[in-house]
Amino acid sequence: MIDVDQVANLAQVSRATVSRAFTRPDLVNHKTRERVLEIANQLGYQPNQLASALRRGQSQSIGLIISDVLNPGNAMLVKGVQDAATKHDYTVFMFNTDEDSIKERKALESLRSHMPQGLIIMPTSGAAQNLKLVGTLPVIELDRASGIKGAHTVMVDNFGGSRTAVHHLIQLGHKRIGMIVGSLDISTAQERHNGYQTALAEAGIAYQENLVQIGNHREDGGRLAAHKLLSRADDERPTALFVGNNEMTIGAIFATRDLGLDIPADLSIVGFDDSRWAKLLQPAITVVAQPAYELAYLACETLLDRLERGKTQKAIEIRLATNFITRASTAAPKQ
Amino acid sequence: MIDVDQVANLAQVSRATVSRAFTRPDLVNHKTRERVLEIANQLGYQPNQLASALRRGQSQSIGLIISDVLNPGNAMLVKGVQDAATKHDYTVFMFNTDEDSIKERKALESLRSHMPQGLIIMPTSGAAQNLKLVGTLPVIELDRASGIKGAHTVMVDNFGGSRTAVHHLIQLGHKRIGMIVGSLDISTAQERHNGYQTALAEAGIAYQENLVQIGNHREDGGRLAAHKLLSRADDERPTALFVGNNEMTIGAIFATRDLGLDIPADLSIVGFDDSRWAKLLQPAITVVAQPAYELAYLACETLLDRLERGKTQKAIEIRLATNFITRASTAAPKQ
Repeated sequence: MIDVDQVANLAQVSRATVSRAFTRPDLVNHKTRERVLEIANQLGYQPNQLASALRRGQSQSIGLIISDVLNPGNAMLVKGVQDAATKHDYTVFMFNTDEDSIKERKALESLRSHMPQGLIIMPTSGAAQNLKLVGTLPVIELDRASGIKGAHTVMVDNFGGSRTAVHHLIQLGHKRIGMIVGSLDISTAQERHNGYQTALAEAGIAYQENLVQIGNHREDGGRLAAHKLLSRADDERPTALFVGNNEMTIGAIFATRDLGLDIPADLSIVGFDDSRWAKLLQPAITVVAQPAYELAYLACETLLDRLERGKTQKAIEIRLATNFITRASTAAPKQ
Repeated sequence: MIDVDQVANLAQVSRATVSRAFTRPDLVNHKTRERVLEIANQLGYQPNQLASALRRGQSQSIGLIISDVLNPGNAMLVKGVQDAATKHDYTVFMFNTDEDSIKERKALESLRSHMPQGLIIMPTSGAAQNLKLVGTLPVIELDRASGIKGAHTVMVDNFGGSRTAVHHLIQLGHKRIGMIVGSLDISTAQERHNGYQTALAEAGIAYQENLVQIGNHREDGGRLAAHKLLSRADDERPTALFVGNNEMTIGAIFATRDLGLDIPADLSIVGFDDSRWAKLLQPAITVVAQPAYELAYLACETLLDRLERGKTQKAIEIRLATNFITRASTAAPKQ
C-alpha cells in the first residue's frame, strides 16, 4: 500500500503538506498542491478519509433523506443534490422514508453513527420529533418544512403556484372546482390547500368541504380520492380538479378513465409538479412546474456553504418560484 | 455525551459486551443483548460506527453506483437496494454516473476512501478499467456486466426478452422491423441486439444494418434515432420498431408524433422496460418488463450474504426472467 511518506518524498514536501493538500487545500500553495495531487494520483495514493474524519469527528459526506425515489420529482431532487455534492467532493448517504416517520427515525439513527457533516431532508410529519436525534448537525429542509422553529428551508412557492392554478380554472369559467390534497400535516399540502382556498375566496366562490379529498401522495391515493369526488351526478360533480402532486394526478387520470369522463370536455385537470408523462399524454396535462433540480442543487450548496462559514444565527429561508404551464387538459366547462 | 460505561453499568455487563451487542450480536446471549439495546436506546447511546469501522477497516455501509436516477427503472433499482440494505442495517452511499466513465471513476475514488464493505454497480463501458481502483472490494454488477472475468452479476434475461418481443412482431406479420439499440459497449445493449438478430434469423428474415440505429439510452437519443429510421418513404420505412430501453422509447414516441405517424396503424412499437407512462399512454405500449425491484433487492442480499460468508471461489451469475406484456401499440402491418 502506498503511504503518505512515498508521496511526500517524491513531491519533496513534508507529510503534513501532503495531508493538507487533500484536506485543507486553502492552506497550501497552488502549485505545490497540484504537484502533490499529481504524484498521489500516479502512485495511486488515496488519503484515508475515514481516518481523518475520525480525527475531525466528521467525514466528507452528507446525508440525504427523501420520501419516495420512485416519484420522478424526488428522483430529480436526488440528482440535484448529488451533482452539487460531487462538485464539492462530498459523498451522499441516501435514504428513502416512503413517508413513514419510523423509517425516517431509523435513517437518522444510521446517519448519526456515520457522522456526516450535514443533512438534507424532505421531512415526514414526524420530523420535528425525529430530528432531535441529530441534535446539532447542520440540516437543510428541502421541499417541505418540518415546522421546527429556526430551521433552514429551501422550498418552492407552493401557495402562489396553487393560487395561480385555481385562478386559471376560475378564469375558464369553472365554479365547482375540486382539490385532491396531500396529508395536511405536511407543509407543502397545507400551503397548496391555502392557495386553493385563497383563489376561491378572491373570486367570491364559497369553499365547499365536500369538494376536497385528502390523498396519500401516491397514485392509489389519488385514484381513490378522485373516485370519491367524481362518482356523482353530473350537476354535482366538480367540473375541474386541482391535484396536489404528480403521483396523485396519475391516479386521478386513471379514475377519469374508470368513470368514462373525457378530459377536458367533462373535467379539466391541473396537476402540481411537471413530469415527462404530463407532456407525453394526450391531452397533455396543465401543471404547476417546480424547479426541482435547481431547488435541490441550491439546497446542497446552501448546506455546504453553511458548513464552510460555520453557524449562522439567522434561519435561511429560500423560496423558488413555480412555473404555470398551460397544456390541453384544461378548458371551459360544458354549458 | 452518553458513553459505553454508563450503558455497561446500568445493564450490569462489561464494556466489551455492550460493544459486542452492537457489532457482533451472534456472540451475545439474546436476552442480554435485548437488555443492552433497550438501555442504550433509553439513554440515547449510539455506538460510534465510524470508530469501529476504522478499527475493523470497514464501515457498515455499501456503495451503490447507478447510471441515471432520472430513469424510472434505475430509481426502482435504487429502491430495491435501499430496502434490502435497510433491512440488514446497512447504509448506502449512492452515486450517479450519467453513463460517464469519468464520473464512475470519481465515484469509485470517493467510495474507496469511505471504506464501504461492498459495492453494487451498474457498470459504464469503462468499468472494467475503473473497478481496478477498488481492488479486493466485494462487488456485485447489477443489471449489466462489466466484462471482468469472474465478476458476480445479477441481471435479467435480455437476450430472451428481446427475442420474444421481436418474435411477437414477426407473428403479427411484420418483416421490416427496426431496432433502436443502446451503446454496444454495454452488455445489455449487446444482448438485446443479439435477441433481435436471433429472432429475425429464426424467421428467415435477413438482418439489415440500415434498420438498426444506436441511441444514447436517453430520450433525445431515442428521438434522433427514430427520426433516422422513420423519415423514409412509406415502402422503405420499418413497419415496426423495437426500442432497447424505456427512455429511448419515449423519444421514439415523440418522433412518431413529429412525423404524424399513427401507433399502431403506421408503426408498431415495443419497448424494453415497463414504466408508468407505458400503461398510461393511449395506446398503451407493449413492453418487455423487467423485475427491477426484485433484481436490485436480490443483488443487495447477494452482496450482504457474500460479506457474511466471506469470499467464494465461484462467480455468482444470476439471471431473472423478463415478462412480455402485450398492450395496444402493436398490431398487424397495413396491407
